Parts: sequence; C-alpha cells; structure tokens
Amino acid sequence: MFETIAFDADDTLWENEILYKKAEEKLTQLLAEHHPAEFVVQELFKTETRNITAYGYGIKSFTLSMIETAIALTKGRVTSKEICGIIGFGREMIDADVELIPNVRETIEKLSTSHSLMIITKGDLLDQQRKVERSKLGKYFQHIEVVSEKTRNTYKALLEKYEIMPERFLMIGNSLKSDILPVVAIGGEAVYIPNNTSWAHENVSGEEAQKNSYHELEKIGQLTAFIENYSN
Amino acid sequence: MFETIAFDADDTLWENEILYKKAEEKLTQLLAEHHPAEFVVQELFKTETRNITAYGYGIKSFTLSMIETAIALTKGRVTSKEICGIIGFGREMIDADVELIPNVRETIEKLSTSHSLMIITKGDLLDQQRKVERSKLGKYFQHIEVVSEKTRNTYKALLEKYEIMPERFLMIGNSLKSDILPVVAIGGEAVYIPNNTSWAHENVSGEEAQKNSYHELEKIGQLTAFIENYSN
Repeated sequence: MFETIAFDADDTLWENEILYKKAEEKLTQLLAEHHPAEFVVQELFKTETRNITAYGYGIKSFTLSMIETAIALTKGRVTSKEICGIIGFGREMIDADVELIPNVRETIEKLSTSHSLMIITKGDLLDQQRKVERSKLGKYFQHIEVVSEKTRNTYKALLEKYEIMPERFLMIGNSLKSDILPVVAIGGEAVYIPNNTSWAHENVSGEEAQKNSYHELEKIGQLTAFIENYSN
Repeated sequence: MFETIAFDADDTLWENEILYKKAEEKLTQLLAEHHPAEFVVQELFKTETRNITAYGYGIKSFTLSMIETAIALTKGRVTSKEICGIIGFGREMIDADVELIPNVRETIEKLSTSHSLMIITKGDLLDQQRKVERSKLGKYFQHIEVVSEKTRNTYKALLEKYEIMPERFLMIGNSLKSDILPVVAIGGEAVYIPNNTSWAHENVSGEEAQKNSYHELEKIGQLTAFIENYSN
C-alpha cells in the first residue's frame, strides 16, 4: 500500500523539546531577580518567533535568542559571565545524548524490512545530522532530508525528487502544522503521534486541524500494527 | 564529456568571505583598546576552529564565536550593549545583498543549456538557501545540496544519490581543500578558481595540493571556453 514511510525526527523518534525546556528553565533562574519565570518564557518565545526568518530553527538560533532576551530583560545589566553561561546552556543541548522514544528502534527496524524509510526533519543541518548519527538509526533510512521549513511545497518537491506518488506516501510526526496538515493537503497520508512536550510555535487551531483528515496514534509502538491493518 | 557540472557557492558564485572580513574588522575596532587587531583576528580564528565540531559553518556559528572571543579577550569586561552590537554584526551579514562575482550569471545561464548543473555548498542550511534565492540563479540548477562537510565521502554519496559517474562529473570551486582535492581523489575532474579573499581554515599545504591533478582558471568567465575546449 505505502511505498515510502517518512518520519519526522525531533519528538517523533527522539526527545528534543525537553532539552529546550530545560535550557529555558535555566534562563528563567538566571533572570529570576528581574522577572517572574512565566514572563521570561513569554518574552523568549517572542524573540524566537521574531528571529525565525533570520536565524531559522535549531540550537544556535535558540542560543542567540536567549542572549538577546537576557540583555533586553535586564536592560543590559546581565553580565558577560552570565552570557557565557547562556552559551553554555546551548552547548549542553548540542552535547546531549539522543534519547530514543520507547519502541522507536524496534518499530523502525521492523518497518525497514518492508518499506523504504526516510527522515524529513526541520532544523539546523549539523544538529540534525549529529542526532541521526548518535541515534544509530541512520542505517535504516534510505534518505535523510534536513529542510528549513515543512510546507506543502517542501513535501511536493521531495516527492518529486524521489519520484514518490503522494497516495503511496505516509508521513509520521508529532506536529500537525509541520508533519501532518501539509502532507494531507498534497494527497499523502499522515499519522499524528502527539508528544507530551511540544513547542508553542507548532500549535494550530482545532478548526484548522479538523478540516483535514489524518490518522492519530497514541504511541509509535502502535505504528507497525496500524500499517499492517491499513494494508489489509 | 561532462554530464553534471557542480559549483561551490560562497566565493565561487558570489562574494562571501568579504562579509566575514568586514564583521571581523568591526570586532577588532570594538576590542581595539584591549588588544591589537592582529591578535583579535588570531584569537577569533582559534575560537572558530575550536567551535566547528559543535557549531558547524555559517553566520550564527560565527556570531557565537565572536561573542565568546569578545568575552574572553576582555576578561568579561565587554558590556552587554557591546554584545548586542556583535549580534548586530551577524544580522548585517544575514541581511546583506548577494553580490555575484563578475560573469557568473552569463556563465551559468550558458552552461545550463548544455549540462545538468548543481550547487554543492557547505554551511548553514538557511543561510545558503537564502543566498541562492537572492542570487536569482536557483532556476539554472537541477539540484542544490547544502552539506555540513565536503569530504571524499560527501561527494561519493552525492554522486551515488544522483547516479553520476565520477569521470563525467566536474566540480568548480575556490577551495582546494573542500572543492577540488576530494573530487579529484574519487576520480572526478575539478576546476580551481581562486578567490582573492579566502578563509584560513580552507588552506592546504602546497605539498598536499601537488600530489593531485586539477585544472586552474583565473576567472569564472573563462569556464565556458575551458569546457568547450576540453570536450574537443
């Protein structure tokens, strides 16, 4: 039925957002005497959103946004030692181990024997390649595509590049906005597997989501059975 | 003769290193009361080299390295306002117009009618995509590949991916280390077109270079004639 199954990576194959939340928490602690945590988080999110066009996604962008937020929220009183600390928060994220989500390895291994598998992930090229390498899952995937945005056009171009018919393409991911809705819109199938931790930037309204039709599973461990049933 | 001609982008199709030199100069001015310019440049280069494994190439990495260098070289006395300024040096680089090298447009346009053209560029995904877009050259290229390193294996994998035989592959670039030697090593042909401004990180010893054989042109405007002669 499906020829190619593509997976989002961050928070679909491995934990990722939790690293951002941890760094965010450290930033709120650093700025605790200036502002309440909730306000720092809000302002950081605003800075990140404003910087996305210039910086794109990934840890370096996030680090630069943390520095900018700290300078703005302390009216320049943050010390360069503290800024050094913020650069350190980013470095810890870069150095962090890749923690696979339960049942990912078995699922990917099994599906790789029957389907052509791809990773389609948004973000910083080096960050994403490093995580694929650390995950030791690379060998199961025919293609690994790091893209700067996941829009309909992104998926259209990739399907053309690899000569895949949309109706034989299944995308798996934790973001309705990036992994599910654009794929459904171009005639592909998609399985939404929500993750407990998700980034506000990836949110879509319920209305937007309901207009379309996709599948939803609670856990990636249910994916193999879903695909077997779907094909029958 | 050649089926696919691949071009490096930065300092082969458009000026790039000059933006880094300009930012570097601003940093030396900012730190002028602490250290002589030459020392600042040396230390910045050391920081960049140390950070490459973690950060990779591109403007965001460079910005983070400038901040780190400024903090280290002032023993933390650099102010957060000055750090804001350094972030600004990076933003100016991101916002800079793409300045094509003379004769690039005509050369690419002409070669695109007879050959399949590719861009193979190292760096930050978003930076590089943005420059391709601003250059308005994107339409002439069948494939645009942004890679995190340019080693023999990088080229081998790309040639396999696009089913190109090495002997029918020609790479054009301004870096012996990244564009020329690895391509020659896997059996491809390469044309070295040096750029006046080059980054120390891309240097190789004369000895390393002489072991291999490649072509050299002074200017990209000579490329069309070179390829026509080569095929006869």
